[in-house]
Amino acid sequence: AETTMKTYRLAMIPGDGIGVEVTGAAMQILEATAARHGFALAPQWFDWSCAHYIATGAMMPSDGIETLRGFDAIYLGAVGWPESVPDNVSLHGLLLPIRKAFDQYANIRPHRLLPGVEGPLRAQGFDILCIRENTEGEYSGAGGRVHQGRRNEVAVETAIFTRNGVERILRFAFDQARQRRGHVTSVTKSNAQKFSMVFWDEVTREVAADYPDVTVAHMHIDAMAARMVMAPESLDVVVASNLFGDILTDLGAAIQGGLGFAASANICPDGSGPSMFEPVHGSAPDIAGRGIANPIAAIWSAALMLDHLGVAEAARAILTAIEATTAKGIGTVPGRDATDKITAQIRAELET
Amino acid sequence: AETTMKTYRLAMIPGDGIGVEVTGAAMQILEATAARHGFALAPQWFDWSCAHYIATGAMMPSDGIETLRGFDAIYLGAVGWPESVPDNVSLHGLLLPIRKAFDQYANIRPHRLLPGVEGPLRAQGFDILCIRENTEGEYSGAGGRVHQGRRNEVAVETAIFTRNGVERILRFAFDQARQRRGHVTSVTKSNAQKFSMVFWDEVTREVAADYPDVTVAHMHIDAMAARMVMAPESLDVVVASNLFGDILTDLGAAIQGGLGFAASANICPDGSGPSMFEPVHGSAPDIAGRGIANPIAAIWSAALMLDHLGVAEAARAILTAIEATTAKGIGTVPGRDATDKITAQIRAELET
Ligand SMILES: CC(C)[C@H](C(=O)O)[C@@H](O)C(=O)O
Ligand SMILES: CC(C)[C@H](C(=O)O)[C@@H](O)C(=O)O
Repeated sequence: AETTMKTYRLAMIPGDGIGVEVTGAAMQILEATAARHGFALAPQWFDWSCAHYIATGAMMPSDGIETLRGFDAIYLGAVGWPESVPDNVSLHGLLLPIRKAFDQYANIRPHRLLPGVEGPLRAQGFDILCIRENTEGEYSGAGGRVHQGRRNEVAVETAIFTRNGVERILRFAFDQARQRRGHVTSVTKSNAQKFSMVFWDEVTREVAADYPDVTVAHMHIDAMAARMVMAPESLDVVVASNLFGDILTDLGAAIQGGLGFAASANICPDGSGPSMFEPVHGSAPDIAGRGIANPIAAIWSAALMLDHLGVAEAARAILTAIEATTAKGIGTVPGRDATDKITAQIRAELET
Repeated sequence: AETTMKTYRLAMIPGDGIGVEVTGAAMQILEATAARHGFALAPQWFDWSCAHYIATGAMMPSDGIETLRGFDAIYLGAVGWPESVPDNVSLHGLLLPIRKAFDQYANIRPHRLLPGVEGPLRAQGFDILCIRENTEGEYSGAGGRVHQGRRNEVAVETAIFTRNGVERILRFAFDQARQRRGHVTSVTKSNAQKFSMVFWDEVTREVAADYPDVTVAHMHIDAMAARMVMAPESLDVVVASNLFGDILTDLGAAIQGGLGFAASANICPDGSGPSMFEPVHGSAPDIAGRGIANPIAAIWSAALMLDHLGVAEAARAILTAIEATTAKGIGTVPGRDATDKITAQIRAELET
């Protein structure tokens, strides 16, 4: 009997440093999963990176965004090589334009401790989904400087929040909570930022009214940072602005044992463009080329991609294989096990 | 032989809830220390609080600031009683105007684990001094909302940084580092906030040039939040903007075991006005009136006050007595020991 397999077109951008190493690992696992779960992958590789910048003067070709538009999903390893290209050039030339161009307004990052991983906290049992607004707010890029270099210089940076921008990320968070334990914590600082954050709180109350089955808590960012360390098990879905989400997801990565375990997805929920999947870690020049980067964050991000593409069973199989691997003590300590060894073990677990 | 004792005039503002309870405890310890270290205290008590607001329509009298100006220092317990007075009223009616009026631009908060206290981290050995800019930046209060309540509403909040404001807090931090282990970490987010934070980084480089004996590191706020959890022992002095410092000091309080241990000083370094000392915790309506508030943060804040007033030996004696108390397991677990018991033990230790 002949069956037509569904084929997913993937834009693969390994990027710089360990981004290249972990993307290779993620691709191996993706291919292995596809073979077992009856779908096919059509990856196309793009060498857009700091090396590309040095060679051509741009992080990606001028039609880069148009090229990506046709794919079902984008996978990105890591971007940046500060020794030769300043971070603001590399980030503003590749990662950030992609997030913007495809309106990937929901940056989602799961934080929980994999079996066998000893995090920095005594607390063990937590399972948090952080949802970060990814397109506006404190990273809008609006501002300026006057009297530059003089004694009376003033620099301003303006956070811009739109109702549509705030409402859609909150709805996304409440929808996610429905798939989980039904609790949303909305993080602001409305006692000190009377315009932006009071507005966010108001929209939260409006949106919450449409989700009577979801409970909601309001917390200030300072108290929330403390809570993630003191009582992470009390949290389910956490939703926050671009800056607050950025901070909380690095903190989330820390409590789950480090960046080697932190996966992320930049979702365009209405599907008007492709979504992008990337580990939270950067290119890590200090360990690049040594074959010791932990591929778990990258492979977990690949699982988020499959889940988003609709092959949830395959995504779950990858997570199960990651957990079986760390439960055996492989990949649990930063820098100890080779990337290849961890990847091979996850692959072996997929086959059991 | 007759000696003239130095007398310090203190404005004591117990405030609300447990603020009243812990301020009483702090005063007991201050008096005991004064008697032993040969100085005198002339406290004057002010009932400025939410109760005062309900009775009079204002958190403090209209000449409140002028009244405070004549004191050597201000001690504040805690402000706020959200059930009857909204936080933005109580904070903007008392705490924040005092910080502003006396240009208390340096908010300093020590974070280390007292002996016997089991923090949430596995890490034990850290000793961090967080220095937060206290007068401008992200809490400048500049901003607005257009099309309020409509679909096209936009809210903006503008962070304002002045060269004088940034430079003076950085100099203060570098000066503090000279008294400690000689290392400053300056926290920004210059890869995403290109105006304000790039400016802060530039001023940091300029100021650092005047302190060749102090080493300096630049970190992004997201990486820094993770660092405080992953490797707090790598930090000495941490300096940050109003918002970033606010977040990091709550995180600092968390890693030192909670708000019951977090002391703070709002310093006016040029002495043009009095400085203010307060525990980081709030009025804690949930435990107010039960006599179980931990007075250690408040007593530690009193020690910071004595140190600032120039009686460093007395300040050290208080710290030693606090440490002897927690080393005996008293006051180490939130809510377990009575405020009175902990205070009595610290007092007894002062006398040994
Ligand atoms: C590199 C930086 C611009 C980026 C961000 O802040 O979005 C990163 O910190 C992240 O969290 O993905
Ligand atoms: C209550 C609030 C305005 C205050 C602040 O942000 O300054 C508090 O969080 C603090 O840290 O002292």
